[in-house]
Amino acid sequence: MTRRLRFGVVGTSAISGRFVAAARSAGWRVTILVGSSVASADRFRQQCGSDALVCGDVGQAAELAARECDVVYVASPNSLHAEHATAFLDAGVSVIVEKPAFAHPAELARAQRLADARGVLLLEAARHRYEPNYGRLADRIRQLGPLSGAQLIFRQYSSKLAAYQHGDRPRVFDAQWAGGALADLGVYLLYAAIDWFGMPEAAHYGAQVLPDTGADACGWGVLHYPAFRVDLAISKMHQSYAPSEVYTADGRTLVVNHVTEIARAELSGRDVTGQELVLDRPADNPMRPEVDFAAALLSDVDAALTDPRYRQACERAAQVARVTLWMRQDAGIVFPGDAAFEQGSDR
Amino acid sequence: MTRRLRFGVVGTSAISGRFVAAARSAGWRVTILVGSSVASADRFRQQCGSDALVCGDVGQAAELAARECDVVYVASPNSLHAEHATAFLDAGVSVIVEKPAFAHPAELARAQRLADARGVLLLEAARHRYEPNYGRLADRIRQLGPLSGAQLIFRQYSSKLAAYQHGDRPRVFDAQWAGGALADLGVYLLYAAIDWFGMPEAAHYGAQVLPDTGADACGWGVLHYPAFRVDLAISKMHQSYAPSEVYTADGRTLVVNHVTEIARAELSGRDVTGQELVLDRPADNPMRPEVDFAAALLSDVDAALTDPRYRQACERAAQVARVTLWMRQDAGIVFPGDAAFEQGSDR
Repeated sequence: MTRRLRFGVVGTSAISGRFVAAARSAGWRVTILVGSSVASADRFRQQCGSDALVCGDVGQAAELAARECDVVYVASPNSLHAEHATAFLDAGVSVIVEKPAFAHPAELARAQRLADARGVLLLEAARHRYEPNYGRLADRIRQLGPLSGAQLIFRQYSSKLAAYQHGDRPRVFDAQWAGGALADLGVYLLYAAIDWFGMPEAAHYGAQVLPDTGADACGWGVLHYPAFRVDLAISKMHQSYAPSEVYTADGRTLVVNHVTEIARAELSGRDVTGQELVLDRPADNPMRPEVDFAAALLSDVDAALTDPRYRQACERAAQVARVTLWMRQDAGIVFPGDAAFEQGSDR
Repeated sequence: MTRRLRFGVVGTSAISGRFVAAARSAGWRVTILVGSSVASADRFRQQCGSDALVCGDVGQAAELAARECDVVYVASPNSLHAEHATAFLDAGVSVIVEKPAFAHPAELARAQRLADARGVLLLEAARHRYEPNYGRLADRIRQLGPLSGAQLIFRQYSSKLAAYQHGDRPRVFDAQWAGGALADLGVYLLYAAIDWFGMPEAAHYGAQVLPDTGADACGWGVLHYPAFRVDLAISKMHQSYAPSEVYTADGRTLVVNHVTEIARAELSGRDVTGQELVLDRPADNPMRPEVDFAAALLSDVDAALTDPRYRQACERAAQVARVTLWMRQDAGIVFPGDAAFEQGSDR
């Protein structure tokens, strides 16, 4: 592929900056930047050092994007993803939506149907899935033989916690913005669990819910499989240095530094002594592998629409959204869009 | 103390052998060995290379112990601890009972009352509490400032799991013998949690219960405190290499190799880079520190009865028993003695 992909960005926070850097490193060209106002979009444009068009309105940006973009990356607050992604899909533009893609699986299903109807792509930016080491680990796990469970840990102290504790209401700690530990970090674990072990039969989540914002600051999830369970430790208020682990039925353990940016993995126990897996050095920009994956699909959108890799990505996003909802419901976490889907046919 | 303590042992499994070795290394002399039969006691006597008296009956052993022993170590199957300990206490002999001391807190309370009435000691063999590094860590945790939680992990693949999978019913995987992961390994975590953070207000346990034996093979516990929660990963079917962690409210993490045989502890995060705590080398025999603690008390039983260290050990055992019951009840794990205490006044 020699054509430079043209992309737009919705949202001006740090993650958008990292996406722009990753996409540019892959040769993409940013053409539209959308903020909550023209001024904020322009500030972001200056930070990026770009000559992109700036917009303070998604509707207007969608019209422009139909001419100016091959794809738009949506990284507005979680609770606005659905509205924003829909505007671009409806205008016939492919969309990469930052995880968690949508607050409710019905929103995702609707957006996926719209993308198919318009003949464009809708991808969730689950960046870790596209790391070469993640795929290598998935292969290794399949070779391990019968499993007896796993312990997946993503506990990361949020820089926004202090603001919350001082009386602010940062979006990541507010259910009104579809924030919380499960939405923000748990989805990484759910992708890993479903990619590595398949779709669970049921899921539970015992969460520490912030009384004033309704968001989960931390919690423990359990995914139930026919032959075993997978335990998930999720937190935005604790910093864990513990590895994740996959257990075999015969007492061996695959110890992995983390489910994202995988750098070290070792098989231990029962006649095995610290057998290290050969892995690549992770990418300098952890968003680069997903950018490359998207580029491969976007180079021929018509072909991509029936590409098994694309269809698997769509299916996986739907499964993650479904399990996320099971867990939210179990923990009593309510997002603004939920009520609208209560009577819906999408569950 | 120059007098050699004379001790008896009930139970002939591997843990009894380790206790004999630890007690002898401290200068104790074994005088009575009790098995489920005289023959098994005699086999154990030969393994130990001892001239101790052998018994196949606890009643008879209790009569002998009143003359021949300063203390008896009870390591029969969990569900028999109460009956066996009671026989020796009633005969006026101090008892060290292997953890978990009793299947139900009411049994422990009754045995503690009996010990006080007879003027002898009743200790639960929670060996890790008496490690110097455990105490040092407790001091360090108190200095950390406000905490925001902990993640304590004890997942140890049991050598008996294969037998269970082949259709046997090893006691450690059978609720009829008061076995299971919580009873066997969870108590270590509960001691650490209560020693380090105090008594929780409530506790939950989501367990994988073996359908044919009613015992928990693994599970996740949550202890609720006023300001935070402590998460417990417990398993006899998985081997974890992940450390345990204590989290501060300001984003630092104390990473500890384990709650027993503590050898490494490091404080990390938020302006701290891997600050290693200075710790002793753990004892060669992990039961030696508890033996030394017991020896100090047994050297003057009358004084020990009002010694705050003894009273705290009694209180802690009662707290651990109480939380264990909360967790069992939450997970629906029923032990044989439970029904007898349902209407009791000990809860």
